[in-house]
Amino acid sequence: MENKRNIWLDADPGIDDAVAFAMAFANRDRLNICGLSSVAGNQTSERVTGNALKLTVFLGAEDVPVVQGAVLPLLREIVPAGDIHGKSGLGYCELPSVEKKPAAENGILFLRDTILGLPEGEKMTLVPTGPLTNIALLLKTFPEVRERIDEIVLMGGSGAGGNVTATAEFNIWADPEAAQIVFGAGLPIVMCGLDVTQQCILTREQILGLYQSDKTVQHAYGEMLRFYLDSPSYKGSDGAAIHDAVTVLYLLHPRLFAGKRMHVEVDCSEGLNRGMTVCDMRRSQLQKPGDVLVLNQVDLPAFQKIVLDTLASYDAVSE
Amino acid sequence: MENKRNIWLDADPGIDDAVAFAMAFANRDRLNICGLSSVAGNQTSERVTGNALKLTVFLGAEDVPVVQGAVLPLLREIVPAGDIHGKSGLGYCELPSVEKKPAAENGILFLRDTILGLPEGEKMTLVPTGPLTNIALLLKTFPEVRERIDEIVLMGGSGAGGNVTATAEFNIWADPEAAQIVFGAGLPIVMCGLDVTQQCILTREQILGLYQSDKTVQHAYGEMLRFYLDSPSYKGSDGAAIHDAVTVLYLLHPRLFAGKRMHVEVDCSEGLNRGMTVCDMRRSQLQKPGDVLVLNQVDLPAFQKIVLDTLASYDAVSE
Amino acid sequence: MENKRNIWLDADPGIDDAVAFAMAFANRDRLNICGLSSVAGNQTSERVTGNALKLTVFLGAEDVPVVQGAVLPLLREIVPAGDIHGKSGLGYCELPSVEKKPAAENGILFLRDTILGLPEGEKMTLVPTGPLTNIALLLKTFPEVRERIDEIVLMGGSGAGGNVTATAEFNIWADPEAAQIVFGAGLPIVMCGLDVTQQCILTREQILGLYQSDKTVQHAYGEMLRFYLDSPSYKGSDGAAIHDAVTVLYLLHPRLFAGKRMHVEVDCSEGLNRGMTVCDMRRSQLQKPGDVLVLNQVDLPAFQKIVLDTLASYDAVSE
Amino acid sequence: MENKRNIWLDADPGIDDAVAFAMAFANRDRLNICGLSSVAGNQTSERVTGNALKLTVFLGAEDVPVVQGAVLPLLREIVPAGDIHGKSGLGYCELPSVEKKPAAENGILFLRDTILGLPEGEKMTLVPTGPLTNIALLLKTFPEVRERIDEIVLMGGSGAGGNVTATAEFNIWADPEAAQIVFGAGLPIVMCGLDVTQQCILTREQILGLYQSDKTVQHAYGEMLRFYLDSPSYKGSDGAAIHDAVTVLYLLHPRLFAGKRMHVEVDCSEGLNRGMTVCDMRRSQLQKPGDVLVLNQVDLPAFQKIVLDTLASYDAVSE
Repeated sequence: MENKRNIWLDADPGIDDAVAFAMAFANRDRLNICGLSSVAGNQTSERVTGNALKLTVFLGAEDVPVVQGAVLPLLREIVPAGDIHGKSGLGYCELPSVEKKPAAENGILFLRDTILGLPEGEKMTLVPTGPLTNIALLLKTFPEVRERIDEIVLMGGSGAGGNVTATAEFNIWADPEAAQIVFGAGLPIVMCGLDVTQQCILTREQILGLYQSDKTVQHAYGEMLRFYLDSPSYKGSDGAAIHDAVTVLYLLHPRLFAGKRMHVEVDCSEGLNRGMTVCDMRRSQLQKPGDVLVLNQVDLPAFQKIVLDTLASYDAVSE
Repeated sequence: MENKRNIWLDADPGIDDAVAFAMAFANRDRLNICGLSSVAGNQTSERVTGNALKLTVFLGAEDVPVVQGAVLPLLREIVPAGDIHGKSGLGYCELPSVEKKPAAENGILFLRDTILGLPEGEKMTLVPTGPLTNIALLLKTFPEVRERIDEIVLMGGSGAGGNVTATAEFNIWADPEAAQIVFGAGLPIVMCGLDVTQQCILTREQILGLYQSDKTVQHAYGEMLRFYLDSPSYKGSDGAAIHDAVTVLYLLHPRLFAGKRMHVEVDCSEGLNRGMTVCDMRRSQLQKPGDVLVLNQVDLPAFQKIVLDTLASYDAVSE
Repeated sequence: MENKRNIWLDADPGIDDAVAFAMAFANRDRLNICGLSSVAGNQTSERVTGNALKLTVFLGAEDVPVVQGAVLPLLREIVPAGDIHGKSGLGYCELPSVEKKPAAENGILFLRDTILGLPEGEKMTLVPTGPLTNIALLLKTFPEVRERIDEIVLMGGSGAGGNVTATAEFNIWADPEAAQIVFGAGLPIVMCGLDVTQQCILTREQILGLYQSDKTVQHAYGEMLRFYLDSPSYKGSDGAAIHDAVTVLYLLHPRLFAGKRMHVEVDCSEGLNRGMTVCDMRRSQLQKPGDVLVLNQVDLPAFQKIVLDTLASYDAVSE
Repeated sequence: MENKRNIWLDADPGIDDAVAFAMAFANRDRLNICGLSSVAGNQTSERVTGNALKLTVFLGAEDVPVVQGAVLPLLREIVPAGDIHGKSGLGYCELPSVEKKPAAENGILFLRDTILGLPEGEKMTLVPTGPLTNIALLLKTFPEVRERIDEIVLMGGSGAGGNVTATAEFNIWADPEAAQIVFGAGLPIVMCGLDVTQQCILTREQILGLYQSDKTVQHAYGEMLRFYLDSPSYKGSDGAAIHDAVTVLYLLHPRLFAGKRMHVEVDCSEGLNRGMTVCDMRRSQLQKPGDVLVLNQVDLPAFQKIVLDTLASYDAVSE
């Protein structure tokens, strides 16, 4: 269908990446999902690549090509977030092994070839929900793809307060130099950062509702999300934020969200604020072009309804 | 009077410093103003010291000792803010020359002696409204004063967005190492940063009302504040923030304000965020003791009324 | 011939790059020159790519494929060194225009394909004489080439004292993050830094001798090198260092040089030492594996003789 | 005697500080030793102050006033060098307790008063052999002393290679901001850094000779210095460097040493090179005034003879 938007998922699944995938794969009538690359982040490259392969099969999207991307950040060491996503990266959920293999040896090259292989006049929207290593390497090594990129809708960063340090959000902090390459590339960017994603919660009841479901997909996602409720960050709170899902829901339902255009740079120093997205909120209009749309509001009830309905739609189909 | 609070003003006047002085000197029944030290910031040391001398005389507080403090920041060069405060530092206002001289050669030593000379059991509240150079040197060179300091109520910093760079407020940015020494000293601090001070505006009408007054003090402050309205930052806006006055008004009327305790550190790197006060808003409770009260709300109508009434009180007395 | 060493030149010609090329192309019986990629540095990408094309033709190596590499450093802006290499990048020398075109659109991809296309069991030696942007992107985007890289013999860095700042050498300073990626890659590296290259001078007499020659190649190189003598750095000195040529001469005549193995990292901070190669000279043995051979001595008379004889060999052949 | 040079010792004793003291106190006919301040560094402030008191008594200089200086660096945490100087700070040597107390409560204020109390026209030479915290605070808090300072002859820094990190020497690294304040003050400085002090060794035989002596002072210094030979840095080497003694010997015998004037700044970034003294060796002449004399050569046999003879002179006198 000519109106379908070409999208490429780039992720480090990760529980909330898995929710983003579910949102995307349930909407293949509107999104032409051209592929999915893994990137080291929430877990090692090996693990997140395995999770990506399993999730595509589990969600009935076995045909979506999966490739392995960067194994390490550009400069810093990798620091997996095992306490947030569990040892497997998918919380308490154990997905079955799959036969499916990566579609190519070099994931970033495959992504480049996929972009250049789009029908003439078509562009790709990149949807990164992990560290930006792959996207930075793509843009720097293959500048010929630039004009074929429609938009980058990413989960990462924060305009006010971080979750790894006082000011840095995990995905950006995990590879600040890559993030600065992406934010500095002059391409249209939608930043789904903590400003909006920390509002995008599923409640404890909603998560336990999924867990108690006897339907396959809903139960599996309940197993994943339940892990959040037990993690140190959410212990005792009323719900958990589904950060990465915001990217896909923004693509599908942009009117659920509001934001503001501003200039964004990444702190690549070795100081206190390493990995902070510096969002020039107060002065952007005066200083530099506001080329990044920083989301900061959501219609939460609508968000929750769509997430839950979409998860339910899998079980409706499959049973 | 035994209930009077001992305070020491440390400032780089500066238009809004001058408003802070007016608020303080009008309330000497409640505040025992022990002295005033200048610090290079909005203008050179020579100019701000001259302004401090003139302002004490102009406001009928000739007896308040004025001393000259640091001429330069600890490490960085001085960058006067001439475009904000005018060449004189007091906008369009020209105060008459005065005979009054600094009370001592070495201002920081005089401050130390003044603190140690307080009656036994009494403490000093420091009220810095410029860069924190003097206060840092006081705390480091004279650790014997620490136990005699009650609180530091300062204007500086920001929890979200700066006015010199995207994240740094002028006073902190002007001497980040001094600020880190002060914030790291383990003393009780009230931070009147941009979070609250940018809300504390006088409207264009209020400022022009002062300017059009035929009373000496009100007219002089109108001459000062009118300069803000013409400055690049405020051009076209409906009013101007009276940052420094917040410190003294907080001391006199703490219930006008609200805030939150958190841990604050200063970015002393050479990177993008040099001079940012890193306020650990989301995570403070988990990580480090929330030793700084960061103000973020004000009762604006009450603030405006008190500022205007206080300025008017000078002319009532003097005429 | 089975003993030939496969080498790939990566350069920003640049006067001394041009000397390195001359050294390489005159020794094709010993070096299998697989290609040459340009990188922005001494001059813009467009200009250095043009120079590379022209020089291969001028030196009778038209068959050596030339490709265009990175147009910009990974993170920083480009700062061409026009005062050192002239507006054209080749001093006073004007080489004729050529028909030759780049061998491929994407230079880094072509380099990857060339490496992977080597006969089984063979490896490539990379010889970068400009900023390390291309090499960093190659290693990060195409990790599959790692095991096919024999050695990286690069011009860049310094163990003691820089030429752009007090401690940073131009090639490293021009793209510090790329340099850190390369030095941190765990591959065998020979660093021909200022420690040795600043000893590798041609005297004023030798340069003027070339210039006064009526032979084509010698005169052209005299025209190039004469520019150094007029540059601010060399004004009044007795000769000029031929930095980049050291790489190729080390490959051909390793016994002319001596050095020491040590651990090397690149300062990527925003501070005073940005772009410095931190060579752990005194402590390397205790701390980290000394994986970089840092050259620091040369047999200068032999060096000069080989450079001059090699340049003369072109004219002997061609006339 | 009118030709005596007024000197003030500022130290963190520390084994080699103790040698510096011995060199100074044996030459009171040439040096007017006005006092000694302690600074936290090799050991905590409490311990180094105690050592300073004991050493003055032990060396027959009980009349030299000792005061306690800074307890902490300006910004960073203290990191005592217990593995180099032992738990007491004086290696294996246990000096007897003393009754002597600090001459004043505030050491930096006492130093200021001492400088200003010098006979008119006389100046003070400061001799810091620890972190530069006290000197920085003196210069910043009491700018009135500047014109009364003759010279600062300090042990610290390095032009090529560090002893704490690859590029940072301990004294500078322990308080980089203080060091930058001192190097940036525009006063005449002689830098006795690792470039020269690592050449200034006593051999294992010389140290063991002291240890085996039955004379009090020589044996005590043998006990101190023997600790170096067992420390991880010197294990297996033929001797140990007596860094701090270079300052006093330079004052007494400047012709034993050679050096070069250059511009020196301190890296205060959070990066790899924090605490490095950036000595602009190659370019100083072109760029900035060469205001620091960086020593780099010593007449070692003469140095060793003077150190040993001076230690012996104590026992000759006392017995």
